[in-house]
Amino acid sequence: MDNWLPTLITATPSEGYDLAIKLSRIAIKKTQPDAAVRDRLRPEYAEDADALIAVSAVIATNFATIAAANGYWRDTK
Amino acid sequence: MDNWLPTLITATPSEGYDLAIKLSRIAIKKTQPDAAVRDRLRPEYAEDADALIAVSAVIATNFATIAAANGYWRDTK
Amino acid sequence: MDNWLPTLITATPSEGYDLAIKLSRIAIKKTQPDAAVRDRLRPEYAEDADALIAVSAVIATNFATIAAANGYWRDTK
Amino acid sequence: MDNWLPTLITATPSEGYDLAIKLSRIAIKKTQPDAAVRDRLRPEYAEDADALIAVSAVIATNFATIAAANGYWRDTK
Amino acid sequence: MDNWLPTLITATPSEGYDLAIKLSRIAIKKTQPDAAVRDRLRPEYAEDADALIAVSAVIATNFATIAAANGYWRDTK
Amino acid sequence: MDNWLPTLITATPSEGYDLAIKLSRIAIKKTQPDAAVRDRLRPEYAEDADALIAVSAVIATNFATIAAANGYWRDTK
Repeated sequence: MDNWLPTLITATPSEGYDLAIKLSRIAIKKTQPDAAVRDRLRPEYAEDADALIAVSAVIATNFATIAAANGYWRDTK
Repeated sequence: MDNWLPTLITATPSEGYDLAIKLSRIAIKKTQPDAAVRDRLRPEYAEDADALIAVSAVIATNFATIAAANGYWRDTK
Repeated sequence: MDNWLPTLITATPSEGYDLAIKLSRIAIKKTQPDAAVRDRLRPEYAEDADALIAVSAVIATNFATIAAANGYWRDTK
Repeated sequence: MDNWLPTLITATPSEGYDLAIKLSRIAIKKTQPDAAVRDRLRPEYAEDADALIAVSAVIATNFATIAAANGYWRDTK
Repeated sequence: MDNWLPTLITATPSEGYDLAIKLSRIAIKKTQPDAAVRDRLRPEYAEDADALIAVSAVIATNFATIAAANGYWRDTK
Repeated sequence: MDNWLPTLITATPSEGYDLAIKLSRIAIKKTQPDAAVRDRLRPEYAEDADALIAVSAVIATNFATIAAANGYWRDTK
């Protein structure tokens, strides 16, 4: 996981969005490194509306960063 | 869903707002890919004031990104 | 509701603030289109301190966007 | 309350901070216009740690907007 | 407390971070001016994981403002 | 801990992300300086989905600041 994030630049907004999701998940992985615990917690939030909304808030914040990094992909056609 | 987000550019702020809503929903779809679970959760948040406010917070964050991408539609007449 | 948001530009910060409130409410309207449900939920959050604070957080995020769009009304006298 | 916010420009960061607090309170006033209800809710959040932290989050977001509007008061001496 | 915040400029990021903490605390002080109440609330949040995380979210928002004000201390050596 | 944050500049986005995590943890350390209390609280949030999501929100906000400070590492190859 040494250089898991070599760049914030992506070809398209869609890929930028996927990267935003990845950033959001890494935060959880780094705070709770035990995969068994994370697996146990997963259904707890994936089936809970409030938790899903909270996850989408984190993704939105990370997407804002990535979109700015990519100049909002304004030149993408 | 490969290139579901080809651009952040929209003709008007209204369309930009709709795109912000779409971004917010995609986050939930990508975190909980099972449509049956999402359908089950929908009434849980659509009829809960706190959840609706939380959803509108996510939309606000995404709208900020889209508005910046569009130069705030300053040239729109 | 087709072009309910023709522009983010307002004459004054006060009007910009009102637009921020409008943006925050539209998000809830678009997530819960049933007016009867929204009417039922209204007292639930309008008389709850936590919900009111959460609403004001959403308004703050939207106001940030609108203020940036208007160049912070720096030339307003 | 017609033009309650004539400008975002303040002489000092301290005054900008006070304006951020004012913006945060106005949001609640506009969502719950009944002063009697607001008075009843006040102790509920002023004596609750979570609510106070949530209020300070809203103030932080509004202060970010006002600080940007004022060019971060970089020329203030 | 008249001019408690004369400037957002600090010599180093560390000092900027301390100022972000100060901003976060002032918000609570201004919302709940009674020191006795605040003292009573303190253990409530200082020993509660959720409250501590919420506090760190406020600090993060304030640090973003201060970092921008300082040009991110890019010339600091 | 006098100058624990000499700079926001990092060589890569990965290192910037680690710094964002560090900033998030410092906030908690400065609010609750007693290491014994923090150790007691740790399992409480590291095994709670909602708390982990809240932590990742704080990291996302701090990462936004650090990414901006580094010009989004656009010249990194």
